[in-house]
Parts: sequence; structure tokens; C-alpha cells
Amino acid sequence: MKKSLATYFDRLWPITRSLSGDGNRESLQILSEIIDLKITEVPSGSSCFDWEVPPEWNIKAAWIKDSQGRIIVDMAENNLHILGYSEGFKGEMSFDELKPHLYTLPEQPKLIPYMTSYYKRRWGFCLSHEQYLKLDQTETYEIFIDASLDENGSMTVGEAIIEGQSKKEILLSTYICHPSMANNELSGPLVTAFLYKELKKQKSLKYTYRFLFAPETIGALYNLSIHGAHWKDNLQAGFVVNCVGDSGDFTYKKSRTENSLTDRATTLVLKQTESDYEILDFAPLGSDERQYCSPGFNLPVGSLMRTKHNTYPEYHTSADNKDFISFEAMQDSVQKYLDIIQVIEWNAFYINTLPYGEPQLGKRGLYPTLSQKGERAFVDAMMWVLNLSDGNHDLIAISERSKIPISTLIPVVKKLLEKNILKSHENFKDNNFS
Amino acid sequence: MKKSLATYFDRLWPITRSLSGDGNRESLQILSEIIDLKITEVPSGSSCFDWEVPPEWNIKAAWIKDSQGRIIVDMAENNLHILGYSEGFKGEMSFDELKPHLYTLPEQPKLIPYMTSYYKRRWGFCLSHEQYLKLDQTETYEIFIDASLDENGSMTVGEAIIEGQSKKEILLSTYICHPSMANNELSGPLVTAFLYKELKKQKSLKYTYRFLFAPETIGALYNLSIHGAHWKDNLQAGFVVNCVGDSGDFTYKKSRTENSLTDRATTLVLKQTESDYEILDFAPLGSDERQYCSPGFNLPVGSLMRTKHNTYPEYHTSADNKDFISFEAMQDSVQKYLDIIQVIEWNAFYINTLPYGEPQLGKRGLYPTLSQKGERAFVDAMMWVLNLSDGNHDLIAISERSKIPISTLIPVVKKLLEKNILKSHENFKDNNFS
Amino acid sequence: MKKSLATYFDRLWPITRSLSGDGNRESLQILSEIIDLKITEVPSGSSCFDWEVPPEWNIKAAWIKDSQGRIIVDMAENNLHILGYSEGFKGEMSFDELKPHLYTLPEQPKLIPYMTSYYKRRWGFCLSHEQYLKLDQTETYEIFIDASLDENGSMTVGEAIIEGQSKKEILLSTYICHPSMANNELSGPLVTAFLYKELKKQKSLKYTYRFLFAPETIGALYNLSIHGAHWKDNLQAGFVVNCVGDSGDFTYKKSRTENSLTDRATTLVLKQTESDYEILDFAPLGSDERQYCSPGFNLPVGSLMRTKHNTYPEYHTSADNKDFISFEAMQDSVQKYLDIIQVIEWNAFYINTLPYGEPQLGKRGLYPTLSQKGERAFVDAMMWVLNLSDGNHDLIAISERSKIPISTLIPVVKKLLEKNILKSHENFKDNNFS
Repeated sequence: MKKSLATYFDRLWPITRSLSGDGNRESLQILSEIIDLKITEVPSGSSCFDWEVPPEWNIKAAWIKDSQGRIIVDMAENNLHILGYSEGFKGEMSFDELKPHLYTLPEQPKLIPYMTSYYKRRWGFCLSHEQYLKLDQTETYEIFIDASLDENGSMTVGEAIIEGQSKKEILLSTYICHPSMANNELSGPLVTAFLYKELKKQKSLKYTYRFLFAPETIGALYNLSIHGAHWKDNLQAGFVVNCVGDSGDFTYKKSRTENSLTDRATTLVLKQTESDYEILDFAPLGSDERQYCSPGFNLPVGSLMRTKHNTYPEYHTSADNKDFISFEAMQDSVQKYLDIIQVIEWNAFYINTLPYGEPQLGKRGLYPTLSQKGERAFVDAMMWVLNLSDGNHDLIAISERSKIPISTLIPVVKKLLEKNILKSHENFKDNNFS
Repeated sequence: MKKSLATYFDRLWPITRSLSGDGNRESLQILSEIIDLKITEVPSGSSCFDWEVPPEWNIKAAWIKDSQGRIIVDMAENNLHILGYSEGFKGEMSFDELKPHLYTLPEQPKLIPYMTSYYKRRWGFCLSHEQYLKLDQTETYEIFIDASLDENGSMTVGEAIIEGQSKKEILLSTYICHPSMANNELSGPLVTAFLYKELKKQKSLKYTYRFLFAPETIGALYNLSIHGAHWKDNLQAGFVVNCVGDSGDFTYKKSRTENSLTDRATTLVLKQTESDYEILDFAPLGSDERQYCSPGFNLPVGSLMRTKHNTYPEYHTSADNKDFISFEAMQDSVQKYLDIIQVIEWNAFYINTLPYGEPQLGKRGLYPTLSQKGERAFVDAMMWVLNLSDGNHDLIAISERSKIPISTLIPVVKKLLEKNILKSHENFKDNNFS
Repeated sequence: MKKSLATYFDRLWPITRSLSGDGNRESLQILSEIIDLKITEVPSGSSCFDWEVPPEWNIKAAWIKDSQGRIIVDMAENNLHILGYSEGFKGEMSFDELKPHLYTLPEQPKLIPYMTSYYKRRWGFCLSHEQYLKLDQTETYEIFIDASLDENGSMTVGEAIIEGQSKKEILLSTYICHPSMANNELSGPLVTAFLYKELKKQKSLKYTYRFLFAPETIGALYNLSIHGAHWKDNLQAGFVVNCVGDSGDFTYKKSRTENSLTDRATTLVLKQTESDYEILDFAPLGSDERQYCSPGFNLPVGSLMRTKHNTYPEYHTSADNKDFISFEAMQDSVQKYLDIIQVIEWNAFYINTLPYGEPQLGKRGLYPTLSQKGERAFVDAMMWVLNLSDGNHDLIAISERSKIPISTLIPVVKKLLEKNILKSHENFKDNNFS
């Protein structure tokens, strides 16, 4: 998988993505080789609650030349150089006139910042502060931005579904609006696509899995406008997949209720499998969880990341590049999502069918016939599952209370279901407590 | 304010106050210059639940002379010398006969204790243990106590109201029964009167504020007999104001429910504004909170003090005098009460009127049009208020969960109300959880 | 009591007890001298939920001789030598044939293990690993086991009742199936019998006390099959009494709900009377609490032990003998159970009959008539009891919240009941929160 991740990374990297435009179309086309995406064009001007889909933005070229015709700043070299959603422009101007259109990071002088102006018409260039300081303030500059903002265009979004036995859903949502940055954000779409590929191999899934690829904020709002009502009743768990490509420890940011199935399953898996990790309380700041967890929806959507956005210096700069990430870490991210999904799939309120006293396990070949001192992990795990399978404890709660890893409990559950000492309470009881 | 506090302190200090009597009338008269008090005379013998208002006590003089006519102990020198509610007496007696009428503090031998015998008829003198040890045990002493206990008298109480938009009430209760002591208790009536004066300046208040000046215990019981039924439905928050004059750190003793609005607002303000402070659990020991928080009423009444009664050695002795207190601290106490009242006034269950996704703040001029890294405290505070204004979180809960000071959140609420993105849930929803 | 405990210990010690058989009958007969036991024979083959009462096992002799007729292993010497529930056998065999029938503890080479094979037919001998290593591997051995397994036999159980004012019950359950071991388990039956004897002396008990003596697991299942339905509605508290004979600190293992009256009373008493003790969370591992706390019953049954079974090296070996225990500790165990029972008896939701303000305690002679600084433990305890006797706090909760020992509160309750300021909420309100 590592090699394949790297290959796709290299193909997707140079494309200029944004809220809309051909770069997004091309990126989704490439991802379609991994995940069976249904692609939708959402017309500019479409309403999504308090918002509207913006005009479609396309850009072919953008540069600044000095009076001798030398290219000083060129989007062809790094697509972060252009302020996202810049309008087209062509003209000459002095340094002083140009200055308000130039954006730098004085505190990180070697790095190009990533900036956008989605909802206010502007044009501008982003460059390293070092480069900016070298600009001749007496020069006259030639500016060229070959960009279009089309009110009759559209925003492109992709979706894939793996049908399960239930229409209850698990959401994997990632965003495709970032140009050439690696952790935030090519890692999200790549991990999501490969997660689809792995999950698709599994024979039978309890839940239906929905994978969404859309620009941040307006894409999430669009998807909420389509699926929000269904999700309020049917979403069991969901993740905003982003910042999953670096080799830092896992970070999980909880959903708004802070005790959703998403939160409980993820916290349990990290606790039982990782020595270092961080659990963050919900905050209405960050990425698309801001929309999914808005008070009108309050969906069980959290975010399993590695190093969290906005906490590492490379964030939203040209330094968030291939050097910053690790394809091994990305593969490991896919696996961690799979582990959590296994817990979500197996979590249920099981019922002990012989709840009066202990079942006699010996006659079913499940208990040692000879009493003796010593270890008996499988028997102990059976005892815990049987004792707490009363309709009030789901499997996660049993793992928490017994302190037995859920990976040990799942085979116990399988065995007890097979022996009919355990049954499912309801097939698809809503697992969220909130 | 400091100077004015000192002036009133000096005028009130020498007056002999008790459960009843002219000293109390005179004290309330002086306080009326600051606060618009309605004064009520409650006849002796009036029933207040299991209690009766005692006879009115007045005392003109009390002394002990030795056989040579030298005054040994004189109430004119310090009104703590007379045991509170002493009956009148005139006569001569040996030291041995006098001894059971003398009260001292052997462990604080330089101090005169403050003692009373309200409900059992006695007479007695309090004096320092050092003075007691110097008494000639072979002497014959002359005793004179010019005191009256009038069954047809009355107990004097004062009340002031600041009307708000709602009949829901905030109570400020202080007691006026202590003779010449400074922290416990001239500080309470002074801080309460000046708090009235400051609050009166505010243009529009949501709640109605009731200020009560009455003797401890029987005064609170009387007020409960009049207002108790109204308060059970309408009291939002309340404070027993006492021990607020020394320069120690603030101490807050919680109301009986321990999560009343009083408790939550006070705890929040202390946490967010003070580096050192103490929060005490409720206990049915102490001052008038014993009555307000009796199980039949269980009112949301706490007590914001500085150094708590009965924890400092000067408590209930002649050492609780002007040297022990600070008028700067007293002024600061007034301000802290005002800060808490501001929180109580602004606390509400607000409702986000655009709860599906985030409102587009940019088009309302509330969001930066240019994405960039860095601090954005006001925007973050807006996000928190909008996200949690779901009818389940009041503003205090939002401050607690977001860890954003409530003083930062209040201007945000004002702005969002003005933009109609926020509205009040109900004007005067009862804020107590209990 | 110490001496009497020792005498009974010595008489009971040599008897071979098991799930059934004459040893159990003889043991119950001896215990009947202390406790008024009603003895029941439960026929082999009787159903108890998923289980059946096994055939009755009796054994007269069991030994291994070498070819020279020397006895190598003899049950007459220590009844742990025989594998519990061994079937009869007579024959000669080589060491290699004998080997699978020999059980040792290689890690505790000096000790004979205690082992059983209740539900699978086997025969075997337990011996120390040192003895095992000395066996001549070229020898031919003669084996003799004079044992019977009678399908038409019965299991013997004992029960005693102390009737209280209410049919609500407190259960004391102990097991009688262990042969010659001291802490686990002669201490449980002995402590239970002497606890009966002490409790029987008390004049008037609120609750009915049921004492059960039965073999582990199948005995508890039998008793649940008889009393389970009654207990679901009526059991207030219960204890599995075992491992109460050594001089280690007390260990309390909570019932399944972890906040039953049993848990709350025991935790409170240990906290307020012991400096070192341990509280264990419930686990469905251990002794008869596995049955009482199965999900279909979920009874408030915990276990107050000293050193917990399976945590000391002597457990289930020949080293759990008279040297390991202390009759003083056993007597102390009886007393601790009595202390907890006193709390259970006095715990109730009392009601303050004068809940509006404080009652005037002075006129009832319950309050000092003279105000003064200093200690007043009884008055403070009254204040707490009166304030919290609101129907929502039982006496345990009052002790927890006030931090006043319940042994101080009980006399306060008696006094206030006598003065009619307090009354019982309901005589026998179910005290379990679960």
C-alpha cells in the first residue's frame, strides 16, 4: 500500500485544487481509480442553508515580472503563490501599488503562506518574506493573472458508498480544496480512498459506509443539505479525515456530544493500542466538524488525525510538503481507521440468554473440567461478557469496565453467539447515548 | 468609595446592636443615607415558624465597681463587656457569687469575648482573662445593669428593592445584630449598602434585587415567613453578605444544592478573576444560610466572604476591630459582587437562530474575509457561543466548556443578539438546575 | 468467642467436605450447635437453571502404595491428597500410567494443591512437587480409592433465619465445600455462625436475616432457584462471607451495581473505622457473587473479606492451615459485620418535621443557651441530620456529605426521633438505588 500511496501522492500533488474548478475534477478523476466515486456538479449559486455555492474558479497562470521581463513570482513554480480565488488581473504598477496584494509570513520568512479570499473579490500573491524583502521598491511590476470566476459554473464533489446490512451509516468525510500541501491536505483524500479499498474487501458489513470528497465548509454544508435529515436519524459514527499523513502520534478530537460511538470507539482503540496519543475535547473550531457538529445537526462526527492542523509550524505553508509526511504513517492511519471500524461493527448491546446464574460452560466445552490455580484469560473474558450482557452495557462498555482489550472480547462474543448463549439485543439499536 | 466607607464605619462602630433595640434603629437610620431602606417593626412574640421574636432589649449602662467605688468593668468603654440580652440587675456580691456571671477566653487572654444569651434569661459580663485574673477574690463588688426586656417591644428590620424587568429576584441579605465588631459584622451591612448604591446606577436590570438588613437567625426567619413562598418560585440567586471587610482572599460557601446559579456564577467569576480563593461546600453551620438553605426552602443562597467567620482568631472578640479590616478590601468586595451580578444578569439559555451549519459570518462583517494563520479571539468566542447556544447550555456553561472568560463572551452575545443570529431562549427561564 | 472459635475450628478441620456427602452433613451438624440450622437434602439431578445437582460423592479411603506395600500417598494423612469428586478405583500400574493422575504445583514444590473435577469423571491424587520428584519411575504402584458417586444421593444445605420487623432481607451466604483448608474455607462458615449467635442477642431488628451454608456455585444456584424471585424484590443487602480468618486488612469487593446498600454501608464503615483497607470493583470472577450478581438477578451482594482469595500464595493449598489464620482476626471479622449491620439497620430516609428554617433546639434543651466559641460536635451533627433529612438523603449519604462518622449520627437520630423533630420516611423503603 505504501508504494501505491506514494504513486498517487505524486500524481495528485501538483494539481491546483480549490473550492471549485478543473483541478478538483482532475483530482477526483485520479482518486476514482482507487475508490468508486460518483461525481456531482453543484451549480454555483445553489443555496446551502445560510450559504451559497461560490462561482467556479479556474486559473491558468499567474505571475509577477519586473521591468526587465524577469519572472519574480510564478504560480507555475508553486501554486501556493496565488491567493486562492484571486480574480483575473493584468497590468503594471509600482511596488507601493503592488504591496497590498502581497502576503508573507514575517515570522516564518522562508515559507510561502497558503491563503485564500473565497467570499471577497481580491487578487494577490503569496511569497516568502525573504523573497519579499528582496523586491526592488523602485521597480515597476507587470502583473498577470489568467483566472476566471464563473457564476454559471459549479462545485465538484465525489461520493462513494459501501452498502451494509443496515441503512445506518458511518461517514468518512475528507476535503479536496487544498492545493499543493501534503499533510493538510493530500493525506486525507488518500487515506480515505485507501480505507475504502480495504473496507471493500470485507465480506459482510453491518453498517453502510459513506465516503465524501468535497471542498471544506461549503462542501460539508452542501452534503448536509442533501443528507442532513437522514443523518440525524441514521448516522452512527463519522470522521473528518485530515492531517493523517505525518509520523506524529495520533490525535483524536471528539464530537460535540463527547460520548458518541465515534468518541467511545476511537478513544478505546487508541487507549488499548497506542502508548502515546492525545484526546482533545470538542471545539467548534477546526475543519468540517464545525458544520457536522453545528447545533442543528449535532452529529457524532469526530476527527482522528495525527499531528493536528494549526499546531505544527509547517501548517498552511509551502513546508507542508512531501518531506513532512510518511507513507508508512499514512498506511498506519488506514489501519487504525480499520481497527476502529471493527469495534464499531462489533459493538452492540448483546443479551445473555441464560442470565440466571452462570451458564454451565463446562458442558459446552468452554470451561476447564479441572479446577486449578492460574491464568485463564479467555474464560475470564467470557465471564465478563456474560455478566454484563444485560442490555445496558454495549461491548465498548464491557471492555471499559473489565479492562479487557476489545480485541480479546470480539472472539469471545463470536464464540458465545455461536453457542447461542449470547444474542444481539436489536440488530441496529442506535449506539449514541446523546 | 473607600473614604465614604470609612466615614460610615466610624459612625456605626460605637452603637450597641443586638437582636432588637434602639441601637438597631439608629444603625438602620444611618444606613438609610446610602440605601433607600423601608424599616419595619416586628412585634415581640410574633411567630416565625418554630420561633418567636424575643422581647425588645435595651441597655443604657452596665458596670462592676469594687468596694472603693472604682469601676472595674464598664460597658461604656466597650459594649462587648455586657453579655448580649442581659437582664437588668443591681446589687452587691462576693467574688464567688459574681464568678458564674463572668465570661473570658483563657486561650486568648488579652481579648474580650463576644457572647449572648438570647433565649435564656441571664446577666453577665465579658472581659479579658488577664483582667479577670487581676480581680481581687476577697472583694465585694457592686453590679449595675440598666437593661430592659420588653415583651411589648419589637425587632427592627430594613429592606430595599431595586425593581428589574422581572419579578424573579436576587437576594442580598446581611445582619445587623453585632455590636462593636468590624469584619463580623459591620462589613456586611456596609458592603451591602454600597452595593445597592452602585447597582442603582445601572440603567436597566433584568432581575429585581432585594436587600435585607435584619438580626441573624430570627431576622432571617422573619423574612422567610414573609417572602419564603415567593422565593421558592422566584429566587434566582442570593447571598448572605458577611465577613467582607478584611484583606484576605475571597471565600465562597456554596448553597445547599451546590450547583445553583449563585454557586455557578460566583465560582466562575472567582476562577476567572482571582488567583487565590477558596470554594467551600455547603454546611448547615454558619450564618443565615442555615435558614435560607433549610430543607423546606432550599434556596439558592450562598455566601461570598473574605476570611470566613470562625476561622480567624479575632472572630467574635474585641480584636475584630478597625485594625483588622481594610476599606480598600471592602470596596473590592463591592466590585466583586457587581461582577458576579453582571454574570447573573447576562446568563441565559440563548438560541442560535441559524443552527444548521455555521452562519456565514463573513457577509455580516463578522468574519475575516482573508484566511490566515494567527489569533482570532473574538471569532473563536463567536464560534463557541453559536455552537453551544442550543437551549441546553447557558452562558456560564459556555464559558466553562470553552474556557473563554465570560467577560469576553458577554460582548460577543451583545453583538450576535444585535445581528439577530442569537435570541434569548425565554426571557426569564429559571436558571437553577436543582 | 476466640476460644470457642478455635474449638469449633479444630472439630471441623479434619472433615472431608465437598459439593455433597457425609462430610458436609457432619459439618452442618457441628455448626448447628452455634446456629439454628434447618438442613435440607437436595436430590442429585435436581435442576438449578442451566445446572444439575451432581451425584453425591462419598469417600472412605484413598492411597497409593509402592510394590513393597509402603503407603506413599494417603488421604488419611491430608484430605487434599485426593482429587475432589474422584471416582472409585482399584488397580496396579506403572509410574507412566499413574503420572496423568498426579497433580502438583511445580512453583510451590512443598505444598499439596487443592483440586477438584466435579463435572467430569476422573480420579487423581494431589501431592507436593517434592514428593512427586522422589517417586521411583520404575516402580509398579497399587492404587486404591474407595469412593462412590451416587445418582440417587443428595446435596446437603443449611439455612437459618432471624426474623425482623420486615420481610425485607439481609443475606449472609457462606460455603461448606472445602476440605481441610483454614482461611478459604473454614473461616467463612465459622464467622457466619458466630455472627448469627451475636445478632440473635439483639432485641429488635428491622430486617430479616437469612444465613445460608451450601457448597459453592451449585449451592448458590440452588438457593437462587428457591429464593431468587423473593430476593429480587426484597433483598436489601447481602454478603458472601469467605476468607475472613487471616490477620490481613479488610478487603471489600463491591456488588455488581457498585452503589448498593451493601456497598455503601460497608465502604462507609471501613472508611470511618479502618486505616488500611481495600475496596475492589465488582468482577464476575470469584465466589458465589458470580451467581448472586448474574445479570438476571443483579442482587446487592458483595463480599467482605480479609486477604482476598487467589491473592495469597497459600490459597488452595495445604499451606492454608491453622498457622495461616488468627482467631482474634476471626472475632474481629464478626464484629465488623455487626458494625455494618448496625449501619444497615439505622440507615433510612428520615424526614425533618420542622423543615422551614431551623427548629428552635434551645427550647427543647438541645442547644447551648449561651453563644460561645468552640467545639460542639453533637450540635453540629444535629444540624447536618436536620438539614439533610429531606427525603433525598439517607443516613449514609448524610454521613458521607457531612464527613461525620455514622456512629456519631446514630445517637443524634435516636434523640431527634424521640423529640419528634425527625420521623422515618417510610418504614422500609428499598434502600438500593440501582
